[in-house]
Amino acid sequence: SMARPTPLLKDELDIVIPTIRNLDFLEMWRPFFQHYHLIIVQDGDPSKQIKVPEGFDYELYNRNDINRILGSKASCISFKDSACRCFGFLVSKKKYIFTIDDDCFVAKDPSSKDINALEQHIKNLLSPSTPYFFNTLYDPYREGTDFVRGYPFSLREGVQTAISHGLWLNIPDYDAPTQLVKPSERNTRYVDAVMTIPKGTLFPMCGMNLAFNRELIGPAMYFGLMGDGQPIGRYDDMWAGWCCKVICDHLGYGVKTGLPYIWHSKASNPFVNLKKEYKGIFWQEEIIPFFQSAVLSKEATSVEQCYRELAKQVREKLSNVDPYFSKLADAMVTWTESWEELTSNKIVAGGVKASSGGVHHANGPTTKVASPPPPPPAVVKSEELGSPAA
Amino acid sequence: SMARPTPLLKDELDIVIPTIRNLDFLEMWRPFFQHYHLIIVQDGDPSKQIKVPEGFDYELYNRNDINRILGSKASCISFKDSACRCFGFLVSKKKYIFTIDDDCFVAKDPSSKDINALEQHIKNLLSPSTPYFFNTLYDPYREGTDFVRGYPFSLREGVQTAISHGLWLNIPDYDAPTQLVKPSERNTRYVDAVMTIPKGTLFPMCGMNLAFNRELIGPAMYFGLMGDGQPIGRYDDMWAGWCCKVICDHLGYGVKTGLPYIWHSKASNPFVNLKKEYKGIFWQEEIIPFFQSAVLSKEATSVEQCYRELAKQVREKLSNVDPYFSKLADAMVTWTESWEELTSNKIVAGGVKASSGGVHHANGPTTKVASPPPPPPAVVKSEELGSPAA
Repeated sequence: SMARPTPLLKDELDIVIPTIRNLDFLEMWRPFFQHYHLIIVQDGDPSKQIKVPEGFDYELYNRNDINRILGSKASCISFKDSACRCFGFLVSKKKYIFTIDDDCFVAKDPSSKDINALEQHIKNLLSPSTPYFFNTLYDPYREGTDFVRGYPFSLREGVQTAISHGLWLNIPDYDAPTQLVKPSERNTRYVDAVMTIPKGTLFPMCGMNLAFNRELIGPAMYFGLMGDGQPIGRYDDMWAGWCCKVICDHLGYGVKTGLPYIWHSKASNPFVNLKKEYKGIFWQEEIIPFFQSAVLSKEATSVEQCYRELAKQVREKLSNVDPYFSKLADAMVTWTESWEELTSNKIVAGGVKASSGGVHHANGPTTKVASPPPPPPAVVKSEELGSPAA
Repeated sequence: SMARPTPLLKDELDIVIPTIRNLDFLEMWRPFFQHYHLIIVQDGDPSKQIKVPEGFDYELYNRNDINRILGSKASCISFKDSACRCFGFLVSKKKYIFTIDDDCFVAKDPSSKDINALEQHIKNLLSPSTPYFFNTLYDPYREGTDFVRGYPFSLREGVQTAISHGLWLNIPDYDAPTQLVKPSERNTRYVDAVMTIPKGTLFPMCGMNLAFNRELIGPAMYFGLMGDGQPIGRYDDMWAGWCCKVICDHLGYGVKTGLPYIWHSKASNPFVNLKKEYKGIFWQEEIIPFFQSAVLSKEATSVEQCYRELAKQVREKLSNVDPYFSKLADAMVTWTESWEELTSNKIVAGGVKASSGGVHHANGPTTKVASPPPPPPAVVKSEELGSPAA
């Protein structure tokens, strides 16, 4: 079936990029991203101008925009941490999201061909997953392979795929202790596989190169409270991954990992990372058993319902680990409320103010933030945004 | 750690080969197998002479030997089915087993280098497994990789690996319906990965290219009742895989799959396979849920105890699927008794007779079947065994 051309989903997918820099990295992605809409979430100082290469169709939100759009609920969106990316998931109205970090470049496959990461994510998301039984030849829906002998026929339809988790060549996604111990380790192994993470198994979800079906799992794709004013960082994607996997397992959706690879260019500072991570490294020893044993009720049949139940359990069972988890449980509820309000447009009455500063559009086709109604777009040519920062 | 030379385990590993043919396929494996001891289980007509290439150190058992050694308990060893291979596991006294089919040849890796399948299996078995949490960069103990960010440190010691399940290039291990639908599909994808199958997840274990730690899981590596006089075939390895995985999960051992690849040369006849499989295809829809929900008691702390419990549950819960499962449960018990008797040498008193016909030794170093004491070996040069069959 993969012999058919991959649907491009141009009008059904947003690319979400959290950044503090000019987005020069997009030049390399131009052949693959140019027809898609970008949602850029600018972290840090909102007065800084982020330069976007010409020709990309995008909307950009800085902290002022987040505060304006979410009002008091903006507290659930992290500041000075890439966890802020989930604001992009919130304001998107598309069915699919691909999110990528701005230090990720196009990788090459073993034949030296540029890897179209987005296309592979779309393939992953549009083909089913197999969470109930392991297929030893990996994703049975890929061209040239199938279910092996002994795979139950009743399970060969698979289930809908909610998440596609891609990997990284060059700099592997290690924690600070491993970075410190193996500063020069590089990932050079191209593993030509996509697989479903089995039901009941948790995994460390990295947000660097990630796609998901927003309709299926979006309300659980919350990256938590990290960064400024919070006791931890670098656990934003992990948190989202644990929550999402438990909910996917409960609702019968699939999570795939493996291809596509991106080229991760730069290791972050391990000393800074250690400071961000050390509580998480300790806490995860209790958090993971919590998620491994979390049970959602039969009544929880929507992602929102599941997520509220999970927030409640976080408050009840993790607050004794640290008061932070009460705050996080509050934020999870706030996130869900924001999601429901934005989806139902209620938030329009609640706090959106027109502002010319918030949303930028490149020279491409004029884009509108579908809903809630956007402030009048200030069309800014990328050349006007100032010279690239060092 | 993999930079250290791989221990060869020459005196701790037997290679078990079920066959009905002259073992010309060993010529290709000579560089990798020549220092190991082979246990050949001759299936079918015991009067047929199986030719083994010169220079290999082996013992060979045909049906007469099996009957002689096991007496009335020989009923648990299948006839006219590669399930008979488990007799080799029974009579081995080594810690590790590698079993391979005689239509499997040396495959090449993407750099065109011959793959030493046995060495990779040994690497897999000697490094730990990670069944409790998924590592997205696959086996973290391989050179050049590690645990990724978010992997709990308390789980990084891993657990002992009991089983290493290798894969196949060229002819994939498909069931008859898939063979019929895709007669010309070939597996050409070399996936450079080894991974642990998570706890709680079953998989279709293929016996074609398989290694295991006999001390850890041997008593559960029973290939069931297949072939002559039985209603099904081609579910021998599946049965062993389901039982082993449930027991590994219970006892905290790991199961790995992925590398190494062998080159599977010849597809078996799909029409013959369909006849063997069709009941299994139907039954597995009930067998798999049975194994998925099987719970072993806390008192079951040895593989033998686990296996007896599983046999009891098979009798209780699967006999209503077909009376065959009562017979299979009986055979599971008989297998366990045979295992215990052979391990404790009790069977020496029970039935071993000296026979010059049973055990052949090639021109290599004189080998002894460690225990039970073997009949006086009849040293037969391979040239004397007759010309190769067509």
